Amino acid sequence: MNVSSTRIKRFLDELAEFNATPGKGITRMSYSPQAREARGWLRKQMEQAGLQVRKDAMGNVIGTLPGASPSLPAVMIGSHFDTVPHGGAFDGAAGVIMALEIATLFHEQGLKPDYPLEVVALVEEEGASFERGLLASSAMAGHITAQTLANLRDSAGISAAQRMADAGYAPQEITSVVRAPESLKAFIELHIEQGPVLEQTGTDIGIVDVIVGMTQLTVTLTGKAGHAGTTPMDRRQDALVAASHIISQVGDFARQAGEATVATVGKLQVYPNGSNVIPHQVVFSVDIRSRDEQKLRQVIEQTREAIHRQAVDGISANIEQTLYVPPTPMDPEITHNLGQQCDKLGFSCKTMVSGAGHDAMIFAGLTPTGLVFVPSRDGLSHHPDEWTDAEQIAKGVEVIFHAVKTITEARSHD
Amino acid sequence: MNVSSTRIKRFLDELAEFNATPGKGITRMSYSPQAREARGWLRKQMEQAGLQVRKDAMGNVIGTLPGASPSLPAVMIGSHFDTVPHGGAFDGAAGVIMALEIATLFHEQGLKPDYPLEVVALVEEEGASFERGLLASSAMAGHITAQTLANLRDSAGISAAQRMADAGYAPQEITSVVRAPESLKAFIELHIEQGPVLEQTGTDIGIVDVIVGMTQLTVTLTGKAGHAGTTPMDRRQDALVAASHIISQVGDFARQAGEATVATVGKLQVYPNGSNVIPHQVVFSVDIRSRDEQKLRQVIEQTREAIHRQAVDGISANIEQTLYVPPTPMDPEITHNLGQQCDKLGFSCKTMVSGAGHDAMIFAGLTPTGLVFVPSRDGLSHHPDEWTDAEQIAKGVEVIFHAVKTITEARSHD
Repeated sequence: MNVSSTRIKRFLDELAEFNATPGKGITRMSYSPQAREARGWLRKQMEQAGLQVRKDAMGNVIGTLPGASPSLPAVMIGSHFDTVPHGGAFDGAAGVIMALEIATLFHEQGLKPDYPLEVVALVEEEGASFERGLLASSAMAGHITAQTLANLRDSAGISAAQRMADAGYAPQEITSVVRAPESLKAFIELHIEQGPVLEQTGTDIGIVDVIVGMTQLTVTLTGKAGHAGTTPMDRRQDALVAASHIISQVGDFARQAGEATVATVGKLQVYPNGSNVIPHQVVFSVDIRSRDEQKLRQVIEQTREAIHRQAVDGISANIEQTLYVPPTPMDPEITHNLGQQCDKLGFSCKTMVSGAGHDAMIFAGLTPTGLVFVPSRDGLSHHPDEWTDAEQIAKGVEVIFHAVKTITEARSHD
Repeated sequence: MNVSSTRIKRFLDELAEFNATPGKGITRMSYSPQAREARGWLRKQMEQAGLQVRKDAMGNVIGTLPGASPSLPAVMIGSHFDTVPHGGAFDGAAGVIMALEIATLFHEQGLKPDYPLEVVALVEEEGASFERGLLASSAMAGHITAQTLANLRDSAGISAAQRMADAGYAPQEITSVVRAPESLKAFIELHIEQGPVLEQTGTDIGIVDVIVGMTQLTVTLTGKAGHAGTTPMDRRQDALVAASHIISQVGDFARQAGEATVATVGKLQVYPNGSNVIPHQVVFSVDIRSRDEQKLRQVIEQTREAIHRQAVDGISANIEQTLYVPPTPMDPEITHNLGQQCDKLGFSCKTMVSGAGHDAMIFAGLTPTGLVFVPSRDGLSHHPDEWTDAEQIAKGVEVIFHAVKTITEARSHD
C-alpha cells in the first residue's frame, strides 16, 4: 500500500473540526464560518502537497499539479466538503481526503504526470442550504446562471447569491467556474456507500457502473377542513386519509419493479395540522429511483395513477415533477481500469449501482467519470454515527491512486 | 320575539373588533391585549344590562342579576370569548352574546328572577394558548390547581401561570374560581353547531341531548432512518409507511360503528422529514368520538390493534392516551324545557348529539346543564368564514330566554 491510513485518519479528524455542532454530528454549511475555516485548511494541505491552489467564484477549492504539457486536459479527483445539518464526518469528506492523499503521494513520490492532476473540494453538494444539491458540479457543467443563484433561497428567505456574496464570493461571475469539456480528461470520485450492501457482503470496494435515474414528485392533495367532532364520516374530504392510501402503495410499486428500484415518501406536511381538525391539505414528496429507466418511468406512472385514484369525492390532486434525471452510466473504460487495479491489489470488489446522486453524476455529462464506494457502517449516512474505518477508505484511495497514475500518463489514452 | 337580532348583530360586530388579526379571521387569545379590551367591553355591556360585574382570578367576566332571595343558587348562562388563531366571530361569542341579550331583556322588561341570573364570559375554552381547552369551566369545576397552571406551557415555553400573572390575574388563587355545586341551579350554553347537520336539514335549533365521549391518542411509530436512494426496499423500517397503513383504516372503524362515531388523524409529524430520507419516526394524533361509550371503546380498541399490527419488522409503537371523556348527557329536564319553548315558538327543532366538547360538558358534572345549537353556514368553524345569521342566533336566544325565565322562577323547580 502506498496510501497511509494514518494520514487519512488525521485528515478526517482535522477536517471534522470545522463543525458548527460539536458533539451533535458534523454541520458544515457551504457558506458558513466553518466552511471558510475548512477552505483555509484545504488550501494548506494542498499547498503542502505541492499543488497550485485557487478558490473560484463560488468557493470551491482547487489545487493543480501541472502536467508535462500545459495544453493537456486535467484528470480531476475529489468530492464535496459540505455536510447536511448534524451529518457525519465521511459523506463528501472521504472523497476530498482521497484527493488530498493522492496529491500527497504524487508529491512524496516525485511523480510527474503527463496530464495535469486537479484536486477539487466542492461546495453545496447536499442542497442543505438552498434545497438544490450538486450545485458546484452543476455550475462547472454550465447548468447554473447568476439568475439561478438569485432565485434559490435558504430557509431564512435569503438568496444563494446573497449568501455567496456575504461569504466573499462572486455569484455574478458564476459562469467563470464553467469547465469546457476539452479542459478535462477524466473525473474520479470516492464516496462512502451510504447503504448496507458492501458491509453486509463483506466487500472492500464498490465500483459504480451506473448512478440510478431518479425523480422527485411533490404531491399536493386538497380536500376540505372540518371539525373532527362535528363532521360526519360520510361528509369528509380528508386529504390525509387520501395521502395515506397512496403512501401505503408506492413501496410496493418499487418492489414489484426490481432493478434496484426504490420509492420513498420522506417529507410530508399536514395542514392545518391540528388534532381536532380534518386535514384540508397534505403536501408530500415522492422520491423514486431505478438503475433501469423503463422501470423508473413505470413506477412514476403507477404512482401518478394511484394519486389520481384518490382524486375523487372532493379531493383534488396536483403533481409537480421537480426532478427527473435518467440513469447515468459511469465511463466503461475508467470503471474497467478501477476494477483492474482492485484485482491487482487483491481487494474484494463489486460492481454496483449508486442509489444516491453524486457530483460524479453531473461530471459524467462533461468528461469520462468513475465513482468508487467504500463501506458505510450500518449503511448509515447523514447521521452523527456515520462511519467508515480509515483502513477501508485507504483501500479505495489506493485503487484510485493506481488508476490516476495510469490515466495521467500520456501513453495510456493517447 | 322578545330578542332583538339587530342588537345581537351589533354585539357580534363590536366583540369582533377585539381581534389581533383584522382581515384574517378573529384571533383573541385569552391573555392577549385584545382579550383585555374585550373584558372592558363585556363589563360595560353587563353593567348597562344592570348586572353586578366581577372579574375572577383567571380573567372570566361574570355579571349577576340578584335573585329574590340571596341564598338561592344561580342560573348561569354564557359561553367563552376566546378564539382559535384566525378563527371566526361566532364560536364562543354567539353564546356570550346570548347571555348579554337575555340579561338585557331581563333589564328592559324589569324582570325580577327568584333565582339569581349569572352571565358568564369564559376564557380559554379553545386550548389555543396552552393546549388545554375547557380551562375556565374545568377551574370552576375544581379540576385545575395552581400546579396545573405552572405546568401548562404555551408554544413559547411560557407557563399558563406566568401568562395569567402578566395579564394581571392571580393563578396562585385559582381555587377561588371553584363553584360549589350548591351555588348553581343550572347552566345553559348556546353555541354554533360547527357542523353541517342543522343547515343541511333546514332546522332552526339543535337541542343537544348528549355530548360525545372522546379520546385522544398520541401514537409514536419508530423505525430506522436510511438514505432514500441507497437502502433497498427489503431492508427498510419506514415509520411513515407503517403510519399510512393505520391512518387508512381508522375512518372505516368509525363508519362501521355508527352511533355518530367519528375518527380523525388531524396532526402528524414526520422525522426527520427530508425528501431523501426514510422517516425514522412519525408522531400522530387519533381523535375518536362517539355518543355511545361502548362504540367509543370498540373503535379505540380496533385502532390499538391496527397500530400493533404495524409494530413488526423493526417498527416499534407507543400509544399515549392523552384524553378520555365518556359521553356526557345533558340534563333531561332542561333539554325537555328547551324543546317545549322551541315548539311553542314554532321554530323547527332537532334533538342532536354534540360532536365537539363545550364548557357545557364540564358544567354538566357540576349542575344540571343544557346546550342549544344554532346552524353554522357550510358547517364551517375555526375559520375566518365561520358564519351564522343574527336572525338564526336570535331564535336560539329566544328559546333560552323563555327557558331561563321558567328556571329562574321559584315555582318551576322547587
